[in-house]
Amino acid sequence: MQAVVWEAPEILRQVVLPKPQLCAPDDAVVRVEAASTCGTDLHIYRGAIPGYLPGTVLGHEFMGVVESVGPAVTRFKIGQRVRGNDFAACGQCTQCVAGRHTQCHQRMLFGFSGIQPKLDGTLAEYVRVPWADTVLDSLPEGIDIRSALLASDVLPTALDALDRCQPFVKRRLAIIGAGPVGLLIALLAAARGWCPVLVENNPYRATYARTAGIETLDLPVGATLADAHPELMCSANAVIDAVGGERGLAAALAVVSHGGCVVGVGSQAGSYAVDWGHIFQRELSLHFVIGNGLRMRSTLDAAMLECAPYLDCIFSDQISLDNVPAYFSRLQKRETFKAVVYIGDGDTRA
Amino acid sequence: MQAVVWEAPEILRQVVLPKPQLCAPDDAVVRVEAASTCGTDLHIYRGAIPGYLPGTVLGHEFMGVVESVGPAVTRFKIGQRVRGNDFAACGQCTQCVAGRHTQCHQRMLFGFSGIQPKLDGTLAEYVRVPWADTVLDSLPEGIDIRSALLASDVLPTALDALDRCQPFVKRRLAIIGAGPVGLLIALLAAARGWCPVLVENNPYRATYARTAGIETLDLPVGATLADAHPELMCSANAVIDAVGGERGLAAALAVVSHGGCVVGVGSQAGSYAVDWGHIFQRELSLHFVIGNGLRMRSTLDAAMLECAPYLDCIFSDQISLDNVPAYFSRLQKRETFKAVVYIGDGDTRA
Repeated sequence: MQAVVWEAPEILRQVVLPKPQLCAPDDAVVRVEAASTCGTDLHIYRGAIPGYLPGTVLGHEFMGVVESVGPAVTRFKIGQRVRGNDFAACGQCTQCVAGRHTQCHQRMLFGFSGIQPKLDGTLAEYVRVPWADTVLDSLPEGIDIRSALLASDVLPTALDALDRCQPFVKRRLAIIGAGPVGLLIALLAAARGWCPVLVENNPYRATYARTAGIETLDLPVGATLADAHPELMCSANAVIDAVGGERGLAAALAVVSHGGCVVGVGSQAGSYAVDWGHIFQRELSLHFVIGNGLRMRSTLDAAMLECAPYLDCIFSDQISLDNVPAYFSRLQKRETFKAVVYIGDGDTRA
Repeated sequence: MQAVVWEAPEILRQVVLPKPQLCAPDDAVVRVEAASTCGTDLHIYRGAIPGYLPGTVLGHEFMGVVESVGPAVTRFKIGQRVRGNDFAACGQCTQCVAGRHTQCHQRMLFGFSGIQPKLDGTLAEYVRVPWADTVLDSLPEGIDIRSALLASDVLPTALDALDRCQPFVKRRLAIIGAGPVGLLIALLAAARGWCPVLVENNPYRATYARTAGIETLDLPVGATLADAHPELMCSANAVIDAVGGERGLAAALAVVSHGGCVVGVGSQAGSYAVDWGHIFQRELSLHFVIGNGLRMRSTLDAAMLECAPYLDCIFSDQISLDNVPAYFSRLQKRETFKAVVYIGDGDTRA
């Protein structure tokens, strides 16, 4: 089959690999009809994941058709149209049963290796799906393929962040970072009647978000947030950090008002100092969230329909598998936003 | 009048001061019948509050009888029995109106100076109470004086912490620090059917908490929590840090389980590093809470009754004003827990 693999930092390659096989009774193999690119993939692209193995197939957002199932799979049949979650979880441990699939001790991310056991990804004609009854869901008629792709990762993350903010929001919701997650959060927040404002330091992304109709504040290179937007300081009772790291959290902590909450969906790694006196005296709440499409499965069908008006905003490009390696160098330079990758000769493109 | 003032580090003195006067139309003066000692006072006692003024009257927990009121006070009459909050807030700014009195820009703590405008405290025969209609509350018949003293500070802090934990608790609630706040939280948690466990490094306090019937784990001097109690690591979905600072938060972060919450009621000051990757990957929630008896006024009458069974556990000593200076050297050495200070010749001691 055709697949896109990581070879070395900033080198992806389309290669021919053996079609994946069922390895366990609860596996399925899915013929991928569409996958999408994600900012997380850029960490891999740059070579920033310790121990990431050359030859790992990239990609973790996908939909397609069931090609084969193991004997223990009960929810799906060959030929059924499905969408997949970005990570695989066993569905049976105490964490999974409690709805915390992101904390499953056997969790694996599609398209990842190194920091966890290798699980080949979805930028390929076929993908093996462990624990298929937990990880896949049937895709109802009438759902746009791009909504199904968002449901792998971006949509559950956005919904979880919005839910955490709900008790705190007083119309104004500040969002640090106008990538696909930040922008979808802003669009869904506006639909709830809140007033989202995005903060973004990349001019392409800021313009892109403004075109989508969201108030967006530029953060010029070299300027601090306090200098560029003093009126924003301590101004929002709910702030979502969709950037992550020390920079994203620092911006969110500067913007959140007394008694407010910061929801961190941008990933964090390592140790750094923050002013805890400031956090305590302002009585802040900090929540860290890794989107969990498995827990919220029952709500995602409705949420995918809710996304329909925003799909042309979130997806900037439509490409095929052989365009992926070149596309990533544009994504790396922030010259594009998010691509749907149509795979095979399926009729999904119609 | 007789009052206890701070003179220099580790030196308190009982002195004669002029009786306080009404300074603003919404002031009241209260004849204090009882006050209590608090761990916060130890920071002052040790000289750890920058700019704290010698001669400031100590104390911030109190009940008594209204001695005089300004013309703008509408809720109270001379001779009425009242209890007071540990801090004064204006009741009219946007923060107060929103129920965030702890964030009132004019907020003053009784018995404090230096880091904020001086407001003489309650270890005195009389105390001036700014914004009396907001800061005082009438004290119903049948409430134990010691419950009224807890309602100044310890009780709202405990209730707020328990409320923040509520969505997270799965029976087990870990509490770092077995001071009066930690112990009251544990006692109230047990009454809710939860399983509280206290962690305490001071042998006197640990024994005191055990005597009160709460499971208490010792943290021997020089031992890490992970070494002394490996079974406790990552074991509780809800953890309350009633110690504060880097040490308290580190212990709470070690004990909290995946997807759980840490509620910080111990005070925090300054910057220090924590492992944000650990916090993100475990999807933790962190809440910081400064007890607000003014917001929860309507619930405190019932809560004071709920405390009645625990008063003999929380208050270890009954003393008079002239015993206060000597008492603080015992408190400093952790040879006592919490004292009710009976003031004047009132019948409250009967």
